Amino acid sequence: MFKVLDKIHSPEDLKSLDRDDLNRLSHEIRKYLVDVISVTGGHLSSNLGVVELTIALHYVFNSPVDKLIWDVGHQSYVHKILTGRKEALKTVRQYQGLSGFPKRLESEHDCFDVGHSSTSISAAIGYAVARDMNKDDYSVVAIIGDGALTAGMAFEALNNGAQMKKNFIVILNDNQMSIGKNVGGMAEYLDTIRTGHVYKEIKHDVHKVFDRIPVVGKMLTKGVREIKDAFKQVFIPGMFFEEMGYTYLGPIDGHAVPQIIKVLNQARRIEGPVLIHVNTIKGKGYHHAEINPSKFHGTKPFITTNGEALVKKAANTKKTYGELMGDQLIQYIEDGHKIAGITAAMPDGTGMTRFMKKYPKAFFDVGIAEQHAVTFAAGLGLSGIKPFVAIYSTFLQRAYDQVLHDVCIQKIPVVFMLDRAGLVGEDGETHQGVFDLSYLNHMPNMTVMAPMDSETFKDMMAFALTYMDGPIAIRYPKGEAPFFGYDKSPIVYGKSEVLETGQDIAILAVGSMVDEALKASAMVKSSVTIVDARFVKPIDYDQIDRLAATHKYLLIAEENTMIGGYGSEVLRYVHQKGYDIKVEIMGIKDDFIEHGSRNKLMEILGLTANHIAAYIERYNR
Amino acid sequence: MFKVLDKIHSPEDLKSLDRDDLNRLSHEIRKYLVDVISVTGGHLSSNLGVVELTIALHYVFNSPVDKLIWDVGHQSYVHKILTGRKEALKTVRQYQGLSGFPKRLESEHDCFDVGHSSTSISAAIGYAVARDMNKDDYSVVAIIGDGALTAGMAFEALNNGAQMKKNFIVILNDNQMSIGKNVGGMAEYLDTIRTGHVYKEIKHDVHKVFDRIPVVGKMLTKGVREIKDAFKQVFIPGMFFEEMGYTYLGPIDGHAVPQIIKVLNQARRIEGPVLIHVNTIKGKGYHHAEINPSKFHGTKPFITTNGEALVKKAANTKKTYGELMGDQLIQYIEDGHKIAGITAAMPDGTGMTRFMKKYPKAFFDVGIAEQHAVTFAAGLGLSGIKPFVAIYSTFLQRAYDQVLHDVCIQKIPVVFMLDRAGLVGEDGETHQGVFDLSYLNHMPNMTVMAPMDSETFKDMMAFALTYMDGPIAIRYPKGEAPFFGYDKSPIVYGKSEVLETGQDIAILAVGSMVDEALKASAMVKSSVTIVDARFVKPIDYDQIDRLAATHKYLLIAEENTMIGGYGSEVLRYVHQKGYDIKVEIMGIKDDFIEHGSRNKLMEILGLTANHIAAYIERYNR
Repeated sequence: MFKVLDKIHSPEDLKSLDRDDLNRLSHEIRKYLVDVISVTGGHLSSNLGVVELTIALHYVFNSPVDKLIWDVGHQSYVHKILTGRKEALKTVRQYQGLSGFPKRLESEHDCFDVGHSSTSISAAIGYAVARDMNKDDYSVVAIIGDGALTAGMAFEALNNGAQMKKNFIVILNDNQMSIGKNVGGMAEYLDTIRTGHVYKEIKHDVHKVFDRIPVVGKMLTKGVREIKDAFKQVFIPGMFFEEMGYTYLGPIDGHAVPQIIKVLNQARRIEGPVLIHVNTIKGKGYHHAEINPSKFHGTKPFITTNGEALVKKAANTKKTYGELMGDQLIQYIEDGHKIAGITAAMPDGTGMTRFMKKYPKAFFDVGIAEQHAVTFAAGLGLSGIKPFVAIYSTFLQRAYDQVLHDVCIQKIPVVFMLDRAGLVGEDGETHQGVFDLSYLNHMPNMTVMAPMDSETFKDMMAFALTYMDGPIAIRYPKGEAPFFGYDKSPIVYGKSEVLETGQDIAILAVGSMVDEALKASAMVKSSVTIVDARFVKPIDYDQIDRLAATHKYLLIAEENTMIGGYGSEVLRYVHQKGYDIKVEIMGIKDDFIEHGSRNKLMEILGLTANHIAAYIERYNR
Repeated sequence: MFKVLDKIHSPEDLKSLDRDDLNRLSHEIRKYLVDVISVTGGHLSSNLGVVELTIALHYVFNSPVDKLIWDVGHQSYVHKILTGRKEALKTVRQYQGLSGFPKRLESEHDCFDVGHSSTSISAAIGYAVARDMNKDDYSVVAIIGDGALTAGMAFEALNNGAQMKKNFIVILNDNQMSIGKNVGGMAEYLDTIRTGHVYKEIKHDVHKVFDRIPVVGKMLTKGVREIKDAFKQVFIPGMFFEEMGYTYLGPIDGHAVPQIIKVLNQARRIEGPVLIHVNTIKGKGYHHAEINPSKFHGTKPFITTNGEALVKKAANTKKTYGELMGDQLIQYIEDGHKIAGITAAMPDGTGMTRFMKKYPKAFFDVGIAEQHAVTFAAGLGLSGIKPFVAIYSTFLQRAYDQVLHDVCIQKIPVVFMLDRAGLVGEDGETHQGVFDLSYLNHMPNMTVMAPMDSETFKDMMAFALTYMDGPIAIRYPKGEAPFFGYDKSPIVYGKSEVLETGQDIAILAVGSMVDEALKASAMVKSSVTIVDARFVKPIDYDQIDRLAATHKYLLIAEENTMIGGYGSEVLRYVHQKGYDIKVEIMGIKDDFIEHGSRNKLMEILGLTANHIAAYIERYNR
């Protein structure tokens, strides 16, 4: 079906191709990507942007001996295609299918597991240093986007790498985007280089002047040469990188295979660290992705001819928690509250787009910079602005220290909105949000809440809006918020909510697990008590006292690791009090959870209504 | 006693001083600093370096209306002296005395609590944005060292701040040091600016050429001016900062009060973010600190005349765990092992100095860059080099995500050496290492050990050296390692060690708490079982089974928060098994622990041998 692509089973097959075939290969890979991802869903725009770059890399370097380290990794589909995983790509992100990210266990061509941004340069330096210690001989290449360069970790690595004086190559894949438009001072700097604005302007002036200087003999000619050399020395684009210690090459056109090959061949012969600046276009070659790269960053199945979603969102679809959050923020501004909405390069994902457009002055996209996001919010929180910091559970891991050290110690009223808490499904191990209850739980002065449904969520946000005694984290899962229609009590600090009252068996459920508990209750004949925990921290000790006095069994269900989470703290209290109640914790085992649909994973991990029902049947007799 | 200093009770008193008095004040403050710190101990070098800068800041700005935000904060003593805390400085770092860092609860002039590095720019941007949202009018100044600029967080903030276009000032206090010599590409870049090397060279060339050009009328003169302007535009030192979006001022002499005042007055009138580059000398004005700033970074009491320690280390003093680690690393190299020692700007503090000097090729100081340190180690670990990453417990918090996401998922055999685990004493809230057992405990694939004494420590390191199945963390306290002389079994993965066998009451102690348990046992008549946990993760379940079968009471002692730590995991197992044993966890309450001597804090928190003895007496009857 594909004239060239079908012949490529490993990078070796690539090396015999001529220029025309390489070009043709680019086109075929693009078509294949669109064909496959339009069916499976997945990351499209970023992969379309690196087709030529990936081909050139595998043409010049010898993977797996040479190490190609992909930053973030969602742009590794082309790499997967070229390294024997073309057919397997059709299973990407599906349970037991291909991972959407590089995975060492998947292929010898994947040399560093990834998912979070900005780790590649550090890993590359590790590889390069080890290579030299081992007296091995291979090239090490990190491929990192300009978006990922906004994260401090990448800067730490660049800074350290400059000093190491080891041979390694950083390829800066500059598409002026992270998921959305890239932001910040470094982006400005790269823009200066990219457009060559200052350079051209000054060069023009200089030539104009030189043209007017009368030739007065050799001496002056020599002088002019000196001046020109001096200029050349200064006007190397990327001087900052040069002065740090990198040999800067570029900027080059990232969609011209021959040019990339030429520069890569130069780079591999240069002593010391090299930074190659490659300009690419996110979504390149597929019209709909080119004009709207964000939409096709991570996409659901779509119709290739018009780029429309294959399955339209039904009119009566419930809103996601993120969308609800965006609505609430707008409402708060309109009600006259002084708030700020903060995101780390995720306005769409966190549901803040509408808020961003409507109240841009209260919205802050700080780039892929979770650490800064949190401490920036701390500064706001000390000045009477209530910050809502919306960061996925898995990405707030980057700011663990800032939450603890900058916010909790000072008891600053920052609100953390942790989306994608619990299992996220297709993104797999690196993205599951199953640690936040544990890492927040042991932070003094922290309050942690988890909503069971859309109305509780809004109530919790409203509670957080006016709570001034310290930070609050609200954690909620991916996807649409259910609504149960209970006639609930208002949120009271530290208090849980009894939803159903039964005998012997009590289920204390956190956030998403309330849904499963309610379903389970409907499946069994026994009458059980169901309590929505609402607050993970502090624990509602009065409620535990009551449950222990009236029940024999307590099941605590939380979509989080069982270690150090809510259940283990409740148990500590129960044991300390000497209560005669058998506690069972239903949560996530102490392991990383692979990719697959959330439902599938919940099933495998034993976190469904069926499992709760089975628990009830076991004890209620 | 001090002619000028004694009249300064608030920054207001400063503003009427003339130039001579300001100079005199600098000298008096220096003398006072040396006098006080030579008695109390504390941070000296960094404070000596910012005397003039701090005076100038308080002369120009109006604290507390204007916000002065000190990065790291150990250089805030001068600020404390000038803001009414001169006398109180004599209690610095003592229990209930002055904090060694800015503390909002201590003074209205301290506007952001700090201790960890590189947070100031983020906080400053938060203050600046809030000011504008609140339509207030004040200046915001972050004072950050060049060392702190190696941390990614500072870069994230610089990057975001460039785009915000708010009025705020970053003062880069450039002393070419972090605690030791500053490292990395940014340091190189600053060095270029500082020395003006390229600038001077080219300027020279240009002038030479211009001098040779015959004047041929106005046109050329104009041309020459154009060329000169172009040069000026390009040769602004700090062009990188300029191109990011900052107005760069400097570099200026940080020990010339009038010059600093002039530039600060300029800066406060500039629209948008400003970066002022100030050159200072760490230890300035006290000879012994100037020639050895590292030694006087954080110092114990010393003799002012000769800079020698007041209390000499006794000849028979035991080594600290850090020193032991350094010795072991040297041994491993000499035994032919492929290892690397990694520190984040702490070669002295972590005990690696001797190793660094002896085997510089196996030693890596990556700068204040814990995130990078960890992922760099991951790269090494994948290539057959065994990395020992020595980072204080509290600072590894910065790399929580890298440990989890880059090391644990891939099960890379990185060894984390967590010094200062447990209470660190005088540095207080921001530095207590009381969360690591909790934050490491819930990471899948992680192994956590804690040594009870020097010999166990060496055994654990040797075990970690050859363990290839995943990461290992070894956590140990500040100070000298005890040695108990037990005839111990070798380290077996996941196994604890019974030290004393008794009845009814068992004490399961982690690391430093073994010492307290042994002392307690010697204090009481009852016979108790004492077990050295050795492994915090995985738990020695067999041992728990045995203890539960033969004892009625189990005391678990750990110098860590009680939430999510070792005790809570043991309890989960005990409860799950339905064992009839009463478990009590002795650990740190859910609160931040203030500064004071470690002994004092252990006493207050109930973590001493006396407390364990009291527990034993209570139950053993």
